[in-house]
Amino acid sequence: MIIAMKAGATAAEIQGVMDRVAALGLRALNMPGGERTAIGIASAIPPEMRESLTEALAALPGVAHVTQVSRAYKLASREFHPADTVVDVRGVRIGGRAVVTMAGPCAIESREQLLAAAQAVKAAGAQVLRGGAFKPRTSPYTFQGLGLEGLKLLKEVGEATGMVTLTEVMDQHDVEVVMAHADLLQIGARNMQNFPLLVAVGKTRHPVVLKRGPSATIDEWLLSAEYLLSHGNNQVILCERGVHPLDRTYTRNTLDLSAVPVVKGLSHLPVVIDPSHAVGTWRYVAAMSRAAVAAGADGLLIEVHPCPKEALCDGPQALEPDSFASLMADLRRVAAAVGRG
Amino acid sequence: MIIAMKAGATAAEIQGVMDRVAALGLRALNMPGGERTAIGIASAIPPEMRESLTEALAALPGVAHVTQVSRAYKLASREFHPADTVVDVRGVRIGGRAVVTMAGPCAIESREQLLAAAQAVKAAGAQVLRGGAFKPRTSPYTFQGLGLEGLKLLKEVGEATGMVTLTEVMDQHDVEVVMAHADLLQIGARNMQNFPLLVAVGKTRHPVVLKRGPSATIDEWLLSAEYLLSHGNNQVILCERGVHPLDRTYTRNTLDLSAVPVVKGLSHLPVVIDPSHAVGTWRYVAAMSRAAVAAGADGLLIEVHPCPKEALCDGPQALEPDSFASLMADLRRVAAAVGRG
Amino acid sequence: MIIAMKAGATAAEIQGVMDRVAALGLRALNMPGGERTAIGIASAIPPEMRESLTEALAALPGVAHVTQVSRAYKLASREFHPADTVVDVRGVRIGGRAVVTMAGPCAIESREQLLAAAQAVKAAGAQVLRGGAFKPRTSPYTFQGLGLEGLKLLKEVGEATGMVTLTEVMDQHDVEVVMAHADLLQIGARNMQNFPLLVAVGKTRHPVVLKRGPSATIDEWLLSAEYLLSHGNNQVILCERGVHPLDRTYTRNTLDLSAVPVVKGLSHLPVVIDPSHAVGTWRYVAAMSRAAVAAGADGLLIEVHPCPKEALCDGPQALEPDSFASLMADLRRVAAAVGRG
Amino acid sequence: MIIAMKAGATAAEIQGVMDRVAALGLRALNMPGGERTAIGIASAIPPEMRESLTEALAALPGVAHVTQVSRAYKLASREFHPADTVVDVRGVRIGGRAVVTMAGPCAIESREQLLAAAQAVKAAGAQVLRGGAFKPRTSPYTFQGLGLEGLKLLKEVGEATGMVTLTEVMDQHDVEVVMAHADLLQIGARNMQNFPLLVAVGKTRHPVVLKRGPSATIDEWLLSAEYLLSHGNNQVILCERGVHPLDRTYTRNTLDLSAVPVVKGLSHLPVVIDPSHAVGTWRYVAAMSRAAVAAGADGLLIEVHPCPKEALCDGPQALEPDSFASLMADLRRVAAAVGRG
Repeated sequence: MIIAMKAGATAAEIQGVMDRVAALGLRALNMPGGERTAIGIASAIPPEMRESLTEALAALPGVAHVTQVSRAYKLASREFHPADTVVDVRGVRIGGRAVVTMAGPCAIESREQLLAAAQAVKAAGAQVLRGGAFKPRTSPYTFQGLGLEGLKLLKEVGEATGMVTLTEVMDQHDVEVVMAHADLLQIGARNMQNFPLLVAVGKTRHPVVLKRGPSATIDEWLLSAEYLLSHGNNQVILCERGVHPLDRTYTRNTLDLSAVPVVKGLSHLPVVIDPSHAVGTWRYVAAMSRAAVAAGADGLLIEVHPCPKEALCDGPQALEPDSFASLMADLRRVAAAVGRG
Repeated sequence: MIIAMKAGATAAEIQGVMDRVAALGLRALNMPGGERTAIGIASAIPPEMRESLTEALAALPGVAHVTQVSRAYKLASREFHPADTVVDVRGVRIGGRAVVTMAGPCAIESREQLLAAAQAVKAAGAQVLRGGAFKPRTSPYTFQGLGLEGLKLLKEVGEATGMVTLTEVMDQHDVEVVMAHADLLQIGARNMQNFPLLVAVGKTRHPVVLKRGPSATIDEWLLSAEYLLSHGNNQVILCERGVHPLDRTYTRNTLDLSAVPVVKGLSHLPVVIDPSHAVGTWRYVAAMSRAAVAAGADGLLIEVHPCPKEALCDGPQALEPDSFASLMADLRRVAAAVGRG
Repeated sequence: MIIAMKAGATAAEIQGVMDRVAALGLRALNMPGGERTAIGIASAIPPEMRESLTEALAALPGVAHVTQVSRAYKLASREFHPADTVVDVRGVRIGGRAVVTMAGPCAIESREQLLAAAQAVKAAGAQVLRGGAFKPRTSPYTFQGLGLEGLKLLKEVGEATGMVTLTEVMDQHDVEVVMAHADLLQIGARNMQNFPLLVAVGKTRHPVVLKRGPSATIDEWLLSAEYLLSHGNNQVILCERGVHPLDRTYTRNTLDLSAVPVVKGLSHLPVVIDPSHAVGTWRYVAAMSRAAVAAGADGLLIEVHPCPKEALCDGPQALEPDSFASLMADLRRVAAAVGRG
Repeated sequence: MIIAMKAGATAAEIQGVMDRVAALGLRALNMPGGERTAIGIASAIPPEMRESLTEALAALPGVAHVTQVSRAYKLASREFHPADTVVDVRGVRIGGRAVVTMAGPCAIESREQLLAAAQAVKAAGAQVLRGGAFKPRTSPYTFQGLGLEGLKLLKEVGEATGMVTLTEVMDQHDVEVVMAHADLLQIGARNMQNFPLLVAVGKTRHPVVLKRGPSATIDEWLLSAEYLLSHGNNQVILCERGVHPLDRTYTRNTLDLSAVPVVKGLSHLPVVIDPSHAVGTWRYVAAMSRAAVAAGADGLLIEVHPCPKEALCDGPQALEPDSFASLMADLRRVAAAVGRG
């Protein structure tokens, strides 16, 4: 940790910081510079002390700012756990050599709709069926999902098709019922910092997809993963789904694909991409899916609807089954080109 | 609602959109342009149909994009409710002529700390005591608040000093217990789109401060207010607390003060400003507080700690009691200059 | 063009807008809605009138906002010119079936450095040699390029290796001298809206790479291309190089790869990607290059330095020759997988 | 300067960095931490070495990232020049106790228009007349200004009314002619990093208003000021005019008012605010002007047009003379409330 003093800091202020650090049993080094003095802490600082120590030091007189050298997360870091984590969900391995495709409708609307979608995406090669029962919607006046009825349909169609299932949980008190109906939980972008929900899912051992919030930094995202891991759940898959865009004329969000190599370097957790929510229109989903696989993503989360024009939710971003099948053929070629299955 | 067709849209595609609109009992107008055709809907569209109709039309063949002319929110709009809403909390009127100051520590740490803070801010002229019992924290390793113990201290100190109290609720299942201990609820920035929480608070009639999310547009923020209003709670106060910044070298967020006149034009709800979280350092709090009052804010939410250096949470952004008292004197002059009390 | 009136607009205000439109010889349609009235213009509006008409109408009493249905650019649009533009630079075709690689050092430092870089990138398969003689630098205290001396070295090394050459022009009065020494001009991100420079380059017929500004929207970028095209230069190649990021902890910018399919849909111009400036560190250049090709980019602009540790400019983002050769092998496989050469 | 090593950095890599620092005659301190080692440079580093040294060290093997403790600018810093700079333009003192108002039309359209605007703003209390002769416009099809003819009108009207004049220079080769016609130069937001222009204006001793670029960080802005100062021109006034917004539904940009206290702390240069370009609509200009003065701005740059509806440029954001006069009365009260004239 580095404490940069203000240019006009007095000797007493500098000594005050040195003393505070020493009082915590840490070794302080004085580094006078041209205009400013910096003070370095030359000792290991436990992760659980880092945030509070940063804040405490930043408030001392004469301090300009404090920079952490080690990261505030630990269990999510590759430094702590060098080997790649592979999340195995009933035989579907996410984070291994093969790229895994998770596909299905934004919202579960009926047995017919979900079954048609599941059969189509399975035939095209998808391994995981996604479908929303609880839908977070910006407006209170839009379709909010079928709830428990939707969960039951998901379980039924998952069993009928032999697919692994994924659905969102929005409320910590729904964690048990969602776990009972789906193989994979999803924590949505708007809930990335819903800490009671993170704690509740962290206390289970159920695999979970953690989406990045629309203005979350990489460190904030990994700290949310740390909530899950620190409560004992290490079955965590990270999902980038687009960050707040410069403008929304053509895309809903900006897909930050560089998050794939960045997070792969910092963390051992698998990273998947949701191109559908990122771009918000089916037109650009195929190009972004190919790019995600080429960038090294471990999987894709793609919206497919048997009849997008009639979808009750996010219809414009869903692919039709034919387009999805054609995309899957493309993706197999790109995956092979980058040494993935 | 305006449907812009793609440049190469066929006559059949244009007719398809016209027919779909007509089938819903709405009047469609064909507007051929230089390169593109637009189709206008010349009928009233109920608010609850707007989002889903936008999505449905956007998915039709030949459609480039769909623009809503009327807003997706209704109860929050000044068009629906032209007069200013004044939220009266035990005699403290927020949204009226006087600017209301809400002050206190980020987190409740002890009876001594909270009482000292309350006495100091009351003496300086603050009417509402703020203090967090449940703290949303980016890292799982930082102080998460005293919970129920903190709520009890807030109630006790509120009664002892005769101040109105404000605290955050993070979990819909805590709404009742928080209501029992505090006069004003706060929904934090990270929970602005926690829809189960919005619904739970919307079902009460308890006054609530709804913070804007760090990358929320004005419309998304007003739609979250619409969740509260549409479930029956019209005691809603909006709070701008900074949006995601260009960089974090000097401030934690960028305070979007233009939100004050923009929201005042669109909505009848009171708007308050939290300069402490916006800038993230006490150094800029006074300047931004003065600016907020000059811009027309109905109130301020300011962090004050009896000893910021020892604070367990967000110490660097808290004012000391002396600085706060001096700021309150400034604010009285600025408020008078703009015709406010 | 659609004029949305405010909710409380009077009949006289609505008529005022209708009259103003009619006075310009355009046909106005009145579209009353639930809360607001919209007025549509059902006539072709010449591109050169669109911006000023939008501004004029937005200023009329009772008007809430004005939306253009057709785009403000014309020559750059695919609607005007449906077929892909291929820019042929001495036999190197940019925008055709093959993906073109442009590589070399950020700044030209010496004959030895440039020649070593050129030989290395040519051997690996690059067709265009890039190298900066005039360097835009954020700080006045950093290396600003060799200027004319650098241009001469570029010409010499280009001829010696038989490579097509690319370099940046920062000043409209340097356009001639840069044209005399390089096959391709580059207008940098910080000059995307340097209008005198755009006009000067637009008056030539020299091929030019136009980089997107760090906070430019797609429409602003295409309008800058329109400056070039409207002055007669249709040898324009667009280059995405990253937009302003959420934070700079790990990458300098956020590469907006969705710009590739978006711009390919809107415009006939070739689109290339500069992953080096986007991410700002060599670690992520390979992943982003593969992704760019998979997304459909027509080319890449990659920094390669024979000895990045000793580079005078942007060393951390340059690849070493060995890494570049290995990347080129990867790119050939990805290009083949997406049907490109 | 602090060099953070990667977690797995070897002893040889750490020694390599230490040796490189020592070879430059600087003192390196080794600071082992829990997961990473940091190396501090405990010597003064001349400003002109900072950027290049940062880049060189960042490229060494085993280095994770490099942080500067002192800033990269020097002449612009308050550390170098503690007292406030006051720019005196023919008796109008910018940066002193009084808040200075600069007002007038976006573009000079005719003698009548400019004279009417000048007389109106002077009568209301403005001291500086602004008006554009060379207009940077996003679209090539919009009015680009009257050029030299406009400059002559500005000089004439300035002399007729006894006002100080301000106008934009877009091309380094126009600096002389603009200086001959106007008292104050303006470098626009889109030219903040037009380095040839900065150098040309830096070589004069003419007062200049330097606008912040739409996605420029505070440090980038101060480094552009450093270009001016390091070439000898210390008559520099900084102008915040809004940064790229979250969305453009209601405002063109987001006014970053916290830039006022931040820059006042970092630099001795005066800071003025342009609320008109920031919000892009006259509706919010008054509120933001009052807020700017309350935040401590040294001046305002406000668009006023005798007849905004007929303006050839940016009409929607211009105030009418009556509204401006009323605003000036408000501003006098707010200025008095914060101890300014």
